[in-house]
Amino acid sequence: MAQPLSESDINQALSSLEGWEFNEDKISKEFSFNDFSEALGFIVRVGLEAEKQVHHPELFNVYNTVKISLSTHDAGGKVTQKDVDLAKAIESVS
Amino acid sequence: MAQPLSESDINQALSSLEGWEFNEDKISKEFSFNDFSEALGFIVRVGLEAEKQVHHPELFNVYNTVKISLSTHDAGGKVTQKDVDLAKAIESVS
Repeated sequence: MAQPLSESDINQALSSLEGWEFNEDKISKEFSFNDFSEALGFIVRVGLEAEKQVHHPELFNVYNTVKISLSTHDAGGKVTQKDVDLAKAIESVS
Repeated sequence: MAQPLSESDINQALSSLEGWEFNEDKISKEFSFNDFSEALGFIVRVGLEAEKQVHHPELFNVYNTVKISLSTHDAGGKVTQKDVDLAKAIESVS
């Protein structure tokens, strides 16, 4: 089972990522695109990364915006290294 | 500009659709799938319908579930015929 990260570990991990926030036991970021088509392309690429990592985001899309929230179900809904790794992969396709 | 539908018109339209609810000026439905891969396939098909109709949903995905909410920005965030039409198209690809 994945171990929850401490708040200072989470904040340190986020310091190397642009625009991610730690809030309510999740790390999250809102992405904006030129239009829905670009947002959908991003969602698909995030989905492929999620399948690769066998770890899945919460995803909220309205037209050209996509909000991603990450936490680990198997760790009581807390943030683990799995979330940090997926956030890095998401950055690489955004 | 699209005209808002009355509550009785909305409820009548929803009576021919399975599982849609009218709540907080939106019509919405939660769809469940076997896994994330199926849910992502559904999201993509919904996206293609949305682009075709030039009308887009709010979409919330957690693993195998996808909640879709529809309202019309150009009609003050109220439900219009555009939402009913998109709901029908979404049913056809679910």
